[in-house]
Amino acid sequence: MKRIAFLLVAVAAMAGVVASMAPTSGQANGEAAPIFGVKIPPGYRDWRLISVAHEEGNLNDLRAILGNDVAIKAYREGNRPFPDVTISARLAWSYVPLEESEKAFGRLQSFVAGPPKNGVQFMVKDSRKYASTGGWGFAQFNDGKPADEAVHNTCFSCHGAVKARDFVFTHYAP
Amino acid sequence: MKRIAFLLVAVAAMAGVVASMAPTSGQANGEAAPIFGVKIPPGYRDWRLISVAHEEGNLNDLRAILGNDVAIKAYREGNRPFPDVTISARLAWSYVPLEESEKAFGRLQSFVAGPPKNGVQFMVKDSRKYASTGGWGFAQFNDGKPADEAVHNTCFSCHGAVKARDFVFTHYAP
Repeated sequence: MKRIAFLLVAVAAMAGVVASMAPTSGQANGEAAPIFGVKIPPGYRDWRLISVAHEEGNLNDLRAILGNDVAIKAYREGNRPFPDVTISARLAWSYVPLEESEKAFGRLQSFVAGPPKNGVQFMVKDSRKYASTGGWGFAQFNDGKPADEAVHNTCFSCHGAVKARDFVFTHYAP
Repeated sequence: MKRIAFLLVAVAAMAGVVASMAPTSGQANGEAAPIFGVKIPPGYRDWRLISVAHEEGNLNDLRAILGNDVAIKAYREGNRPFPDVTISARLAWSYVPLEESEKAFGRLQSFVAGPPKNGVQFMVKDSRKYASTGGWGFAQFNDGKPADEAVHNTCFSCHGAVKARDFVFTHYAP
């Protein structure tokens, strides 16, 4: 009886895992990015929010970092290094002044997300597969297509600045 | 041996389920906000992302707008007016320069979310209950406590600027 109960729980849990892997934001299973072989993870736009940011200069965007369930759990519980199967997604949009609030305040006040910009990036934890890059695979996609190898060669060197935080810049925003 | 394996899977799965069901944003079912009687919706920090923004001036924050399932569906399908039970949550955090990227770029480059700031706000659609305010109830909570009535009196008049968009400023960020 106990065995059956356990089996049911295990099956239910697996069903939950499979359901949460179902593709919800299209574009999935397309071309793999160079070097790391990462593909766009299905359903990433439905992932929960890790944090938000604004980049100035040429990037000039508003961005959100989303995480799969493994990422969110690790962030909230403070587990470092991040466990395998952690994936984070960095989305970015144009940095656009909101006309209505500019009128109301009589000056620039609110900046909101406009059309998508600067592609979508992913960090995928696989401590064996990506052992030579701190356990992380990196990928950038522009309009659903992987960026070139040169772009992917810049990822790990930059993230090396935060080696002490398991190569991850983003803190969790509570 | 198989039993032990199942046990381990079941325990791990249950731990995952329990962890994902635990109130992660606390403070739910507390005091109701004045005028509209809105309480903090349980689990709102787990909701999906609608969009992000940056406010300048005194607000000086980075913010994210999250939506419950009804809100996300309506946004994605373009359903207006928003259906009853739509709820959006506006979270905000301090606007903090990221030290590592400032060093790398030799100037201010990245601004990230610091500690929470400017409270948490909700818009709740109930076309009957809130008929006199465009079908929307508004609420702001600071450190889990409702803001006072004066604050809540300012919500609808400001959102009136976007009456044509069902009183909602935020567009969906794809």
